[in-house]
Amino acid sequence: MASKKKYKAMFLPSRKSVAVNYGYNLRQAIIDCSIDIGSSCGGSGTCGRCRVKVVEGKVDFKGSSLLSREEIDEGFVLACMSKITAGCTINIPEKNKSGRAESKDIKEKIYSGIDPQVLKNIRIKPWIIKEKIKVEKPTLSASTDDFFRFKKSICDAFKVKNINIKLAILKKLPGLLRNNDWQLYITFDRLTNSVLNIQEPEEKNSGVFGVAVDIGTTTVALQLIDLLTGKMIDAESDYNPQIKYGEDIINRIIYSLKNDGLKKLQDSIIKNIDKGISAILGRMKINADNIAALMIAGNATMMHIFYGVSPKTIREEPYITVANKLPEVYARELGIISVEDAIIYSISGVASYLGGDITSGVLATGISKKKDISLFIDLGTNGELVAGNSDWLIGCSCSAGPAFEGGGVKCGTRAVDGAIEKINIDQKTYRCSYGVIGNIKPSGICGSGLIDLIGEMYLKGVIDRKGKFNRDIGNPYLKEIEGQICYVVAGAAAAGTGSDIFISEVDLNNLIRAKSAVYSGIKTLLEELDLGIKDISHIYLAGGLGKNINILNAIIIGMLPDIDVKNYTFLGNTSAAGACMCLLSRQKYAYCEKIASKITYLELSVNMKFMDRYVAGLFLPYTDLKDFPAVEKIMFNI
Amino acid sequence: MASKKKYKAMFLPSRKSVAVNYGYNLRQAIIDCSIDIGSSCGGSGTCGRCRVKVVEGKVDFKGSSLLSREEIDEGFVLACMSKITAGCTINIPEKNKSGRAESKDIKEKIYSGIDPQVLKNIRIKPWIIKEKIKVEKPTLSASTDDFFRFKKSICDAFKVKNINIKLAILKKLPGLLRNNDWQLYITFDRLTNSVLNIQEPEEKNSGVFGVAVDIGTTTVALQLIDLLTGKMIDAESDYNPQIKYGEDIINRIIYSLKNDGLKKLQDSIIKNIDKGISAILGRMKINADNIAALMIAGNATMMHIFYGVSPKTIREEPYITVANKLPEVYARELGIISVEDAIIYSISGVASYLGGDITSGVLATGISKKKDISLFIDLGTNGELVAGNSDWLIGCSCSAGPAFEGGGVKCGTRAVDGAIEKINIDQKTYRCSYGVIGNIKPSGICGSGLIDLIGEMYLKGVIDRKGKFNRDIGNPYLKEIEGQICYVVAGAAAAGTGSDIFISEVDLNNLIRAKSAVYSGIKTLLEELDLGIKDISHIYLAGGLGKNINILNAIIIGMLPDIDVKNYTFLGNTSAAGACMCLLSRQKYAYCEKIASKITYLELSVNMKFMDRYVAGLFLPYTDLKDFPAVEKIMFNI
Repeated sequence: MASKKKYKAMFLPSRKSVAVNYGYNLRQAIIDCSIDIGSSCGGSGTCGRCRVKVVEGKVDFKGSSLLSREEIDEGFVLACMSKITAGCTINIPEKNKSGRAESKDIKEKIYSGIDPQVLKNIRIKPWIIKEKIKVEKPTLSASTDDFFRFKKSICDAFKVKNINIKLAILKKLPGLLRNNDWQLYITFDRLTNSVLNIQEPEEKNSGVFGVAVDIGTTTVALQLIDLLTGKMIDAESDYNPQIKYGEDIINRIIYSLKNDGLKKLQDSIIKNIDKGISAILGRMKINADNIAALMIAGNATMMHIFYGVSPKTIREEPYITVANKLPEVYARELGIISVEDAIIYSISGVASYLGGDITSGVLATGISKKKDISLFIDLGTNGELVAGNSDWLIGCSCSAGPAFEGGGVKCGTRAVDGAIEKINIDQKTYRCSYGVIGNIKPSGICGSGLIDLIGEMYLKGVIDRKGKFNRDIGNPYLKEIEGQICYVVAGAAAAGTGSDIFISEVDLNNLIRAKSAVYSGIKTLLEELDLGIKDISHIYLAGGLGKNINILNAIIIGMLPDIDVKNYTFLGNTSAAGACMCLLSRQKYAYCEKIASKITYLELSVNMKFMDRYVAGLFLPYTDLKDFPAVEKIMFNI
Repeated sequence: MASKKKYKAMFLPSRKSVAVNYGYNLRQAIIDCSIDIGSSCGGSGTCGRCRVKVVEGKVDFKGSSLLSREEIDEGFVLACMSKITAGCTINIPEKNKSGRAESKDIKEKIYSGIDPQVLKNIRIKPWIIKEKIKVEKPTLSASTDDFFRFKKSICDAFKVKNINIKLAILKKLPGLLRNNDWQLYITFDRLTNSVLNIQEPEEKNSGVFGVAVDIGTTTVALQLIDLLTGKMIDAESDYNPQIKYGEDIINRIIYSLKNDGLKKLQDSIIKNIDKGISAILGRMKINADNIAALMIAGNATMMHIFYGVSPKTIREEPYITVANKLPEVYARELGIISVEDAIIYSISGVASYLGGDITSGVLATGISKKKDISLFIDLGTNGELVAGNSDWLIGCSCSAGPAFEGGGVKCGTRAVDGAIEKINIDQKTYRCSYGVIGNIKPSGICGSGLIDLIGEMYLKGVIDRKGKFNRDIGNPYLKEIEGQICYVVAGAAAAGTGSDIFISEVDLNNLIRAKSAVYSGIKTLLEELDLGIKDISHIYLAGGLGKNINILNAIIIGMLPDIDVKNYTFLGNTSAAGACMCLLSRQKYAYCEKIASKITYLELSVNMKFMDRYVAGLFLPYTDLKDFPAVEKIMFNI
C-alpha cells in the first residue's frame, strides 16, 4: 500500500511541483513539470548536465564520478540517477537548463541568416492561390446543386477540368454563397486542383499566406510568407522543446521508443510550432483562415516525429527511414489548431541522415542547376554535405555534432544577441578582443567566434597542434575554472552573465573533433568520385554559425577546404530558405523530389577511409598540410 | 433564480428520467431520454401521434382538438404541446412510438426483396482488392526507405505508376514489415490507386468485404458483400432512428435547422449504422479491419444528414442540394468507429428529390442500357419515377407519401413477418380471407395487402369510387372504431396484436391520394416527352411493398399503368442492390455519375398538369378509364 502514497517534489526557482509515487525518477518529475533540464545523454547518467541541488528533504542518489565529493556534500545530485523517496525541494541551477546561455529572443539573428537575395531571386509561380469568384445563382429552371455551379466557376477561372474538395469545405459552401450574394474567396492548390478554403468576400480575407517551417534538432524556425507577393512578412523561432528529452537525434530516437515517448516528442514540437504560428498571427493581425499551407523541412528524425511516425528504423541497421517523403495532411490532423485548415506539405529527404532540410538547402543554393561542381556544407546540429552539379549529386552526413552551434562547449551559444562572433588575440598580452552581436555585453561564443578563437589561439601559440594549452608561455588568461585549466576570453566583469566566458581543453577537443569530421567528410565525399579540393569551384555554407564567419580562420583550423575565400558564400538557414521557395513555386516544390532522388547517399559511419581521415584530422590545422597551401603561406610567412 | 431549479420527468414503462428547467418541452424531454416518440408533424401539434398520459404530477397543456374531453380528463396530453412545470411521471403508450405495429426484426424480409438474380448477373470487376505482397528487405547497400520498396512492390503487382497512402497506414508499415518477414496483405483501391489498409499476412486477414448501405427515410438497410466473390454474406436492417425527430423528409429538415438539430440527426443515423455493422461483424466473426469500404445510397436529405451537411437548401426555393455527390471520407471522420478505417463512397444523386437511391436503382434495373423505353418506379417513403432508355432518362418525385409502406394507415405495416400481404373478399359475406408473411397471426397490412384490399373492396362493392364505404349493403364487418366507421379485415381474436385489424375512410383517403400521386407522376413524366403508357415496354417496381404484390390489383386501383402484367418486374430494394453492384464493379460505380448526369429532373411540385391529374386521380380506378382497358374488361366483364 506504500506505493499509493504520493510524495511532493517542488522545483526552484519556478516553484512548480508534482506529486509522484515512491521511487519516481527525479529527472522525469522535472520533465513532467515542463521544466527544461539539460540531458545530452538522454538520462543515462553520463553527461552530468542534469546536476541539481536538493535544498530540502532528500532523494535516493548513489553518487557519480561526474560530481565532486564537495558537490555531493552540498546536496548536488544527478537528477537522472535519483529517485524521489520523500517530499523534497530541488533547486535547478539556471545554467543546467538545456540550450545555452543566451537570450530567449533568437528570432532576428536566425532569420537574418537567410540571404535576402535568395528569396528575391525566386521566380514566384504561385500555386496556392486565392481568388474572388462568382457562382451562378440557382433558379427553378436551372436547379443544379451548389457544388456543381461552384465547380463550374472554379474550372472556368483556373482552366481545370475537375476539382477536389473536402467535406468540411462543402459544409460551409451553401451558407457562404447565400450570405454573400454568390461570391466568395477561394484558396486553390493548383498542384492537386484542390479547394483548400473558402471565405467571405471581404477585404480582410484577400490575402493568402504560407508558413515555412524548419525543424532543426536544436532550433525551430518559422517564416510567414505572402504567397501572392513572395514577401517574407514575419518570422519566429525557438529552441526545439524536444531538447529536454535528449539533445541529439540518437537520444531522441531512444526516447521515442519508451512508453508514450514518441507521443510526448511529437506533442512538444507540435505545440511549439502551434504557439509560434499563433504568435506570428497575433503580431501581424492576420486571420488564421488566410494561412493556406505549411511547408516543412527538417532532418529525417525530426520529420518522423513531427508526423508521429516512429523513427526507430533510423537507428537500426541498415539505418533507413520509414518514408523520405511524408504524405500531405491537414494541420488539424497533427494537432496544430491555430491554423487547423492549413494543408501541410513537406520536402522530400534523401536518407536517414540526409533529410528534407538538405534537399531544401540544395534547392536554395541552386548547385543542382550549375555546370561547375559546387559543394554545399550545412553545419547544424549535425554536419551534412552535398557535392555535385547539374549532372550528379552526392551527399553524406559527417556526425560533426553541435559544437559550432554552441553545443558541447561550456560557453558556446548560437548566433544570437550577446554572442561573441569575432575574436582577435594580442600576440604579446594574449588578451582577447572581440565583437559581440547586438553590441551588448557578451554572454557566450557562437560558431564564428569559436572558429576565430581556435584559429587565433593556434596562430598566437596559446594552444598547440593538439589543442592543448601551452602552459609555459606566461599567458595570464589561463585560469582554473571548475577544476580545469581554461582560457578566459572575457572576464566576469565584462560579461553579461557575470561569469567568465572561457574555453577549456574539453571544449577544444569537442571543437577539433567536429572540424575534423567536417573536413574528413568533404574529402571522403570527393574522393568517392575521384575528385579533389581543386575541382570545387564554389562552396555554399549554411547553418547557425553566425553570418560574419571568417572563412579564412575556418580554413586555418582545417575545417573548410583551402580554396579562394571569394568562392565561398555563407547563406545562413538554407533549409528555411528552400521551404520558402517551395511555398512560392510549385515547380520548385516538385523539383525537390527530383533533387532527393538524384542525390547518391554515402554512408560514412561504416566508411574506413573516413575514419582514417578523421583521426588524421584531430590536429591543427591537419596532419598533412598539402591540401592547405594558404595556411602554409600564413604559418610560414611565405 | 427560479429558472435554475430542475424538475424531474420520469417516463413509463422504461422508467428513464431527465431533470429539466421550468417550462421545458415535454416531447423534447422524451427525445432527450432517447425514447422513441411518434411525431409525423415534427412537434407542431397537428398529427396527434405524441399523445402521452400524465400519471403523476402535472404538465402545462392547453388542450387540443386531437384529444377528446374524456382523454384529457384521463390525463392525456400532446407531448409536443406540453411544458414541464413540476415533477411528473408520464406514461408513453406502446402504440404511440414511432414506426408501426410490427416486429423489430425486419431483416429477412427487406433483403429478400432484392432479386438474387440482380446480384448474380453482375460481372464482378473487383476494384477494392486485397493481395499478399512481398517487400524487398533493405540492406546497407540498398538502403532505400520502407515506403519506396513498399511502393515498388505495389506498382509491380498492380501495374500502376504511383500510389496514394495516408499517414495512418505509413505509421503501421515499418512494424508490420519487420514482424512478418517483409510480407503483408494490402487492400488497394484501383480507382484512385490508394492503399486502403495493410495487415499481417495471416489467414484471418485474407478476406476483403464491403458494406452496402441504403439509408431510407424509414428504413436503414446494410448488406455485407464479399468483394472478391461478389457473394452477399449477411444483412442487417433497422428503422431509421431519425423517425423520432420527424417522420418525413420535410420534418427532418425542419428539425435540422434547430440548435444542434443537424448534429442530433447525424449522430442518430451514424450510431445506428455503426451498431448494425458491429452486429454483422460479430455474427459473421469477421475482423473489422477486413471491411474496406462502405457504399452509401440514399435520398438527398438522408445523404446530407449522414455527412453532416445541412439539408436546408433542399426545402428552400429553388429546392437544390448542396452537392449531389458527396466526397470520399473515412468512416472515422463521420464517427463510424466499428470500421473506422473503411473508406466511404457514395452514389451520386440527381436532384433534391431524386437522390442516389434512385441512381442506384436505375443501375440495378439496367434501364439506361436498354433500347426500349422502360419505367422504373420506386415506392419508398416517397415515390420516385424514372423513364427512359439508353439514349435518354427523365425522372421525378411524386410525393406519394408512405401509405404503401404502412405510413398514415392505422393498421399499415412494412412487408415483415405478420404483415397481411394478400387479401380476398367474399362477394356474398364481405369477409376477408388473407395471407400473412411468415404464416403467423397478422399484426398489420403491408403495401401489397393494402393494394389487394382496395382493389377487392372496390370490385366487391365495399367502397365506392371515392373510397367511401357503401353503408347500405349489409356489410357485417363495418364497425365503429375510435369514433370512425371501419372495415375489419381481421378480428381481434384472429390478430396477433389482440386488436382488430381494420381500415378506415381516413386510411383509404391517404391511400387513394398516394396512388393518384404515383399514377399522375407517371403520366406527367411520359407526356413531358409526348409519350403514352403504350410506349412503355417494361416496368420495374421497387420498394417495400411486399414481394407478392398483385400487379393487376395495383392496376385496378389506378396506381400502376395498365400494361401486360408479364412486363412488370418487382425488384425490392433496388437502392441497396445498386450499392452492392457498385462495391463489386468500379465501372458501375463510375457509371452512376453518368446515370445521374443523364437524368433530366422534372419538378412536379410546380407542375400544373400534374396537379390537375392528381385531382382527377382521386377516384377508383381513375376519372377517365381510357388508359385502363384491362380494368374496363374486368369491371364490365367484357
